[in-house]
Amino acid sequence: MRGYTMNKDDYLKRLRRIEGQVRGLQRMVDEDAYCIDILTQVSSATKALESVALGLLDEHVRHCVRHAATEDPAKADAMIEEATRAIERLVRS
Amino acid sequence: MRGYTMNKDDYLKRLRRIEGQVRGLQRMVDEDAYCIDILTQVSSATKALESVALGLLDEHVRHCVRHAATEDPAKADAMIEEATRAIERLVRS
Amino acid sequence: MRGYTMNKDDYLKRLRRIEGQVRGLQRMVDEDAYCIDILTQVSSATKALESVALGLLDEHVRHCVRHAATEDPAKADAMIEEATRAIERLVRS
Amino acid sequence: MRGYTMNKDDYLKRLRRIEGQVRGLQRMVDEDAYCIDILTQVSSATKALESVALGLLDEHVRHCVRHAATEDPAKADAMIEEATRAIERLVRS
Repeated sequence: MRGYTMNKDDYLKRLRRIEGQVRGLQRMVDEDAYCIDILTQVSSATKALESVALGLLDEHVRHCVRHAATEDPAKADAMIEEATRAIERLVRS
Repeated sequence: MRGYTMNKDDYLKRLRRIEGQVRGLQRMVDEDAYCIDILTQVSSATKALESVALGLLDEHVRHCVRHAATEDPAKADAMIEEATRAIERLVRS
Repeated sequence: MRGYTMNKDDYLKRLRRIEGQVRGLQRMVDEDAYCIDILTQVSSATKALESVALGLLDEHVRHCVRHAATEDPAKADAMIEEATRAIERLVRS
Repeated sequence: MRGYTMNKDDYLKRLRRIEGQVRGLQRMVDEDAYCIDILTQVSSATKALESVALGLLDEHVRHCVRHAATEDPAKADAMIEEATRAIERLVRS
């Protein structure tokens, strides 16, 4: 069981859509689409990936971190530090 | 002919690798991987997409915008404005 | 008392340094510095601001959210949603 | 003369407003403002800094790079590479 287990199907559907966007990008490059149109599609795929990440993070804090907070304070500390580093990677990417 | 035409194969290879990363994400969700590990993989796919975008943008300015700059000043103006908006979408995504 | 209270002096020092960077940017513009050098300084100030934000967020989850998690589950839910939206604004900015 | 010279006063005004936002952040920390409210203000200052950067970049390409494109192709190449690296720092910050 993970924080996102309840919404697994929704995440899988969103990731399949992103996979389709990345395949669409290959088709655009293959067919010599206009550079700026490709960039627009890249931004759209990037945003969709970040949305997935933000959703997973929300559920991670909501379930995993919170569970640790009431059960095992030391583990909660470690998990919060780990989550902060993950957020940093998202902000920097 | 587009700014990226000379490196088309390289871009296609990178996009196929990103497609593989997104399929890997589906597998991770499907197998209940740890939330933070999924986030790390999302950041990695996002960075790879942004690298593709930065490469395309560089070649767009290098070839298309520069060509317009010497041939058709008004068109160059419009292309620079268009490129700026694309950069803005990248920075904001 | 806030999550960041214990490190208040450190945050104030960092924010004063960022204020100095922004004043430095005004000086650069005023003295007609090279565009790219100004952009480099802007990226540096932006990164410093994001570091402050990530620090505050870490302490917010560590103290405020965790406190709510053990005391008032409904309030913890609301705080996590609020934190997610703040992270989203950081990722998008 | 720089690409931004014509709009120097506008950039200085925007940077002074950002300086005010950063001073406002110090006041908020000093007065123990709520963590999330501080984060909102940080995102707003970050966005304003990025807007300044995007404006400077647009004018840099519009004036400096374009001038080089018609006068000195080798210099234009070097400037475009330099601009791409600056955009990369913005996207990553």
